[in-house]
Amino acid sequence: MKYLMNFSYDGSLFNGYQKQKNGRTVQGTIEETLKKITSDNIKIHGSGRTDALVHANNQYAHFETDKLDELKIRKALNSLLPSDIYIKSIEKCAEDFHARFSVIKKEYIYLINDDVYNPTIRNYTLQLSNNLNIDKMIEGASFLIGEHDFTSFSKVDLEKETMIRTIYKIEIIRKDIICIKIIGNGFLRYMVRNLVGALIDVGLGKKEPQYIKELLEKKDRTKGSKTSPACGLYLNQVYY
Amino acid sequence: MKYLMNFSYDGSLFNGYQKQKNGRTVQGTIEETLKKITSDNIKIHGSGRTDALVHANNQYAHFETDKLDELKIRKALNSLLPSDIYIKSIEKCAEDFHARFSVIKKEYIYLINDDVYNPTIRNYTLQLSNNLNIDKMIEGASFLIGEHDFTSFSKVDLEKETMIRTIYKIEIIRKDIICIKIIGNGFLRYMVRNLVGALIDVGLGKKEPQYIKELLEKKDRTKGSKTSPACGLYLNQVYY
Repeated sequence: MKYLMNFSYDGSLFNGYQKQKNGRTVQGTIEETLKKITSDNIKIHGSGRTDALVHANNQYAHFETDKLDELKIRKALNSLLPSDIYIKSIEKCAEDFHARFSVIKKEYIYLINDDVYNPTIRNYTLQLSNNLNIDKMIEGASFLIGEHDFTSFSKVDLEKETMIRTIYKIEIIRKDIICIKIIGNGFLRYMVRNLVGALIDVGLGKKEPQYIKELLEKKDRTKGSKTSPACGLYLNQVYY
Repeated sequence: MKYLMNFSYDGSLFNGYQKQKNGRTVQGTIEETLKKITSDNIKIHGSGRTDALVHANNQYAHFETDKLDELKIRKALNSLLPSDIYIKSIEKCAEDFHARFSVIKKEYIYLINDDVYNPTIRNYTLQLSNNLNIDKMIEGASFLIGEHDFTSFSKVDLEKETMIRTIYKIEIIRKDIICIKIIGNGFLRYMVRNLVGALIDVGLGKKEPQYIKELLEKKDRTKGSKTSPACGLYLNQVYY
């Protein structure tokens, strides 16, 4: 039977999502726990990886087993997993469903505190000592909407066939902290953090909003802003 | 010169505020850092202790030194302290000021998530798997306002001369998470966590609001509810 699992994690103490030979990873931790429960080597197929220190409010993975039903697996996983991973749901899915290839769009959020430094959120937000101009950031972000070649915002990655992605929506909202929400059909490695890094330069007044448009057109990562730190980033939702 | 320092900390990795022979503490960490800066053994006098795992948004302590001015000390402290303590301000204070004895009132907040478990806030909120009835909690909390003998809500502590304290205000507000704010002229050991534990029993429907009044009148800690976990508690403000 094939199952789709929805889960959340605190990335602070993980060396990223993807299993590695050494280092504590989300995938590795879940697979080890599934082995304890079923005695089988079950591979989970995630919607995509997240980097070290990046969090997930809603990550998804599919896997196959005939040992237990979805309710029992969820209960067993949540009782055995460490407190920084939580299985929100497990449901049966179609045989042709694939947690990665069936993705329609993904939503990331990036949290920034530009007020007084707060120790309790140091692993969960980027903290800046200067205020951001949200209106300028929104203006800069508008250039990113639509289908573009995002080479200027990607990790240099020769494996990718195409650097073209579509961003459907960017929302930048200030409450106590600033939340940048980005929805797109897919994201290149470091793309959200590089987009956010460029938007921060605009928000700080180091660059004008037009900089985003120029950067996009240059198709050159070396002309871009700093990659913003991983700790502010959350995989917020995956749409199938 | 005497200084009053305002600081915040993430209690997760501290064995409480008060210095101990063994164990990492907030006071110990700040005093060791002051020693590095001034070469003197400077004792800091806090507004009161907080227990292991309890956080502070605004804790205060006074200390004396003639080595450096307040701006230089603050800068040096923030560059040398670990990232889970932050010195928000340091100001000169009167010679007869005492961070503990000059306190007029204190404000604590307690955060509860009664929605889906969220790994990223596991050290910063109490997470409950059942929903709380806020209206009943507010009704129960109303019995606590004013001057009372809080024996039923204190750690059994024979050293204290009086168990009488005044609570000025309790606010219980649900946004994404529930925030219980309690303001009083002073708090006994575990008092906030014991009050919150009793209010949670009311919110869960295990007890009626009237239970709070009865418990207060019993003056017997052994009749009370469970002490709620430390991780949801924040020393939020101290008023001088």
